[in-house]
Amino acid sequence: MANEVARNAVDREVPTVVNGRPQIPYQGVGGHRPEGVQAAPPIRTAADFPADGDKRVAGLREIFERAGIRDGAWISTHHHFRNGDLLANQVFEAAASLGLRDLVWMPSSVFPCHAPVIDHLRSGVVHHIEAGLNGPVGEHVSHHGMRGTGVLRSHGGRAQAIKDGEAHVDLCFVAAPAADCFGNANGVGGPNPCGPLGYSRADALYADHTAVVTDHLVPFPCIPWEIEGKLVDWVVEIDRVGDPDKIVFGTTKITEDPRRLQIASLAADFARTAGIIRDGWSFQSGASGIALAITKNLTEIMKEDGIRARFLQAGSTFLVAEMLQEGLVDYVLDGQSFDLDGIRSLRDDPRHLATSPFTSYDYHAKGDFMALVDAVFLGATEVDRHFRANVATHSDGRLLHGVGGWQNCLSARNTILIVPSARRGGPILVDDVTTVCGPGELIDAVVTERGIAINPRRQDLIDATRGSGLPVRAFEEIQAEAVADVGPRMQPDLEDETVAVVKWVDGTVIDAVRRVGSRDQQR
Amino acid sequence: MANEVARNAVDREVPTVVNGRPQIPYQGVGGHRPEGVQAAPPIRTAADFPADGDKRVAGLREIFERAGIRDGAWISTHHHFRNGDLLANQVFEAAASLGLRDLVWMPSSVFPCHAPVIDHLRSGVVHHIEAGLNGPVGEHVSHHGMRGTGVLRSHGGRAQAIKDGEAHVDLCFVAAPAADCFGNANGVGGPNPCGPLGYSRADALYADHTAVVTDHLVPFPCIPWEIEGKLVDWVVEIDRVGDPDKIVFGTTKITEDPRRLQIASLAADFARTAGIIRDGWSFQSGASGIALAITKNLTEIMKEDGIRARFLQAGSTFLVAEMLQEGLVDYVLDGQSFDLDGIRSLRDDPRHLATSPFTSYDYHAKGDFMALVDAVFLGATEVDRHFRANVATHSDGRLLHGVGGWQNCLSARNTILIVPSARRGGPILVDDVTTVCGPGELIDAVVTERGIAINPRRQDLIDATRGSGLPVRAFEEIQAEAVADVGPRMQPDLEDETVAVVKWVDGTVIDAVRRVGSRDQQR
Repeated sequence: MANEVARNAVDREVPTVVNGRPQIPYQGVGGHRPEGVQAAPPIRTAADFPADGDKRVAGLREIFERAGIRDGAWISTHHHFRNGDLLANQVFEAAASLGLRDLVWMPSSVFPCHAPVIDHLRSGVVHHIEAGLNGPVGEHVSHHGMRGTGVLRSHGGRAQAIKDGEAHVDLCFVAAPAADCFGNANGVGGPNPCGPLGYSRADALYADHTAVVTDHLVPFPCIPWEIEGKLVDWVVEIDRVGDPDKIVFGTTKITEDPRRLQIASLAADFARTAGIIRDGWSFQSGASGIALAITKNLTEIMKEDGIRARFLQAGSTFLVAEMLQEGLVDYVLDGQSFDLDGIRSLRDDPRHLATSPFTSYDYHAKGDFMALVDAVFLGATEVDRHFRANVATHSDGRLLHGVGGWQNCLSARNTILIVPSARRGGPILVDDVTTVCGPGELIDAVVTERGIAINPRRQDLIDATRGSGLPVRAFEEIQAEAVADVGPRMQPDLEDETVAVVKWVDGTVIDAVRRVGSRDQQR
Repeated sequence: MANEVARNAVDREVPTVVNGRPQIPYQGVGGHRPEGVQAAPPIRTAADFPADGDKRVAGLREIFERAGIRDGAWISTHHHFRNGDLLANQVFEAAASLGLRDLVWMPSSVFPCHAPVIDHLRSGVVHHIEAGLNGPVGEHVSHHGMRGTGVLRSHGGRAQAIKDGEAHVDLCFVAAPAADCFGNANGVGGPNPCGPLGYSRADALYADHTAVVTDHLVPFPCIPWEIEGKLVDWVVEIDRVGDPDKIVFGTTKITEDPRRLQIASLAADFARTAGIIRDGWSFQSGASGIALAITKNLTEIMKEDGIRARFLQAGSTFLVAEMLQEGLVDYVLDGQSFDLDGIRSLRDDPRHLATSPFTSYDYHAKGDFMALVDAVFLGATEVDRHFRANVATHSDGRLLHGVGGWQNCLSARNTILIVPSARRGGPILVDDVTTVCGPGELIDAVVTERGIAINPRRQDLIDATRGSGLPVRAFEEIQAEAVADVGPRMQPDLEDETVAVVKWVDGTVIDAVRRVGSRDQQR
């Protein structure tokens, strides 16, 4: 049964059973119609909680014991501290010290700081991870697999899976920069702020038990209360929940690389020429060096043209904070702060709102919020002739990136990929992506330093940019130039074994990720 | 089966089946331990909603049709416009015009403006109402009953019942002072603001279908989005959703009645002397003339003593807005604005937060938020020797008040009833309340113009006020004086028929309300 596979709507062979649970192969955009009802948490009563409202307990081990955690339980954490998370490793140390085994870890993302979990994977304390995998953990899983199969979900897909009962969390740990004894918590107070706490929202709502772990206890009520105390079983104080200085991991600065600057400039010009940048528009960009450069360029265009945006979907950064201060945008909707200026803006400016994946990313809602966003500027590790893109694995098949909000963003009115035509190791524009993370009909344009490829489905964009002087070119032409320059893509050395699957935003399986063979292991 | 009754923990005979559904008799405070899981709404998909996010439809009739509403369905509305609600009557006109029958109306409260529903009760369009009943509707039900039995719940109990699946709403209408085409909505924007929209939160989360009805459409996204568009099926524009001038119904001004002023003064002095008013304290008071006078007195004491409150649970009024502006309180937590100053403060001051009954009132949560509030000052129609109180019926048995947040507030550290010792028609201090809405062990003190009766269970309060000069007296002594003055209470003329039941905060039945007989009808 575990070896049964099916071909899905992007022609990929995917398992129909993962970790013992039946799966639905990807059915195309909007093709899968879910049935049934959402997860239903047990009814609680205040009578079972401390009469004085003080839910503090001594430590992490006590949480495991009180929650009655047994082998095989699902444990979740959030990644708002990104590479500065100090909680997850302590959680699994506590679990190991209690002799627990076969736990499933369902963080909202994995970072290099989580390398210690590799030992827990080896020893059997952790059975497998359901999350985007990158850094040393991704590398490890690519080469060695796990006892179970990894499940990569978008931020929206993760919230959807928890809400729909597809993934059930037994115990959720919320690293909370500020909290009160009742469990109300936020990410903007205290000495170690991390921005929003929205990635814990699904868990806090649907997990059997939720523990708020804080290093900064404030008098009741802790406001804002992004996590509400009524959802919280216990509060634990530890020395330090996270290191805000490490939030900026991989993100900090506007790129200085001329090729990337050129891409950023082209992407912004494309959006302007295509008429996407207009008064009241909205966009989402990321926090990579190239994404920051685009945001900077968009800002300049808006100033020149006297344009004000209605809202930014963020990832908030110093640039986003500046836009708000300069009156270039009405609102910032923030799911994750990428630097301290972003956090400060969220804390101090009421027009800067914390969101959770349920706000904007959940596809199993009454409408797709992202479909109302005018433009998203996204990276990718590969994009192919069908405009399908990969964001989870490198061309060599290694799991080096999470899916994040990437899949959810593809619903935007204009999805613009911003990628160099090649990287070390080969072209980024390829015939066929190693891992399909996004279907081609949702990707509207690919902007490279060699020119812009517009998806033929978007005749309106082709028409709008015709005669503009923008280097709009055929995908294959750009691809051929890149191949002529850096050589063809090396065929990845992949074995048959599936080490992870990638889910689409509706919970169906869009692709499988294979174990990387020994050839690559020796590199 | 419908006639089966049981004696509950406050020695009241209550039906064990109401409207065909089995009921649990009240088991004492914290006595009922719920089992099972919460309501589980169907899984939705964005694929079933407009691709451009625009959910606008033509009118209320179309909503009924699209929702597939049939006879017997449950329809809900909110009461943030109080006596200025212009939507509920239109909703039932539309229902009647479609030939629907036997609908159950589950508003968060009923006001005199809803008198037209009496015709729908008579004609059979509405089967019964599950809500606090007052004004002409309460009067009608008291004398004539309904086809079904009324179910009175506190604001927290209503949210609990919907969340726990005890009450299932088929179609929820949200009167929204501001909204966008996706359904994001708030109560503070537009020409007809009403304050928070929290009373619709449970419905929007758990109803099968939710329609946002607005008279002020704003560009996406409508922020704040107290009701999130992802929960909304349709958006309808109508001329006017409500009349903000009528929100102040029965509330506006600080009382000028000397007896009430005396009670307010005594209550504030009692809280000061008992040591309840201290730096960082918290309280909730209402919006009646006497409650406003207390808030004013508390403000003066805080200024004199250099005390700052941590938070106010509100009902927000001009006085609450002033306290925030004057720096007398850190935060205002607002479930319902009672005047335009309260609404403006909520709109403009980030320290003034909108809450829903889930925030502070839901007893089936992980802890009782209200147990962390230092003092609540509440009215009552009757209070008896066991310190049990009535808030739903008058001494003559007529249903003239909703339960509101009253039951939920009883969990506060100090629950102080503020009541005249007598009203027209008889003493308020009685041997045995007509309807038990709150158990005696939760009511700590009764402040009247004749003195203060402290519940013998609160020896600490008795000790703290001893020798203070405050007129602390035995309940029976105050009662006897009142009776000597206005005569004994006239025995209500009640028939056997139960026209409504009153639920406790945990969904159990605390009392039954009987039909008022012909003697009272002739008054």
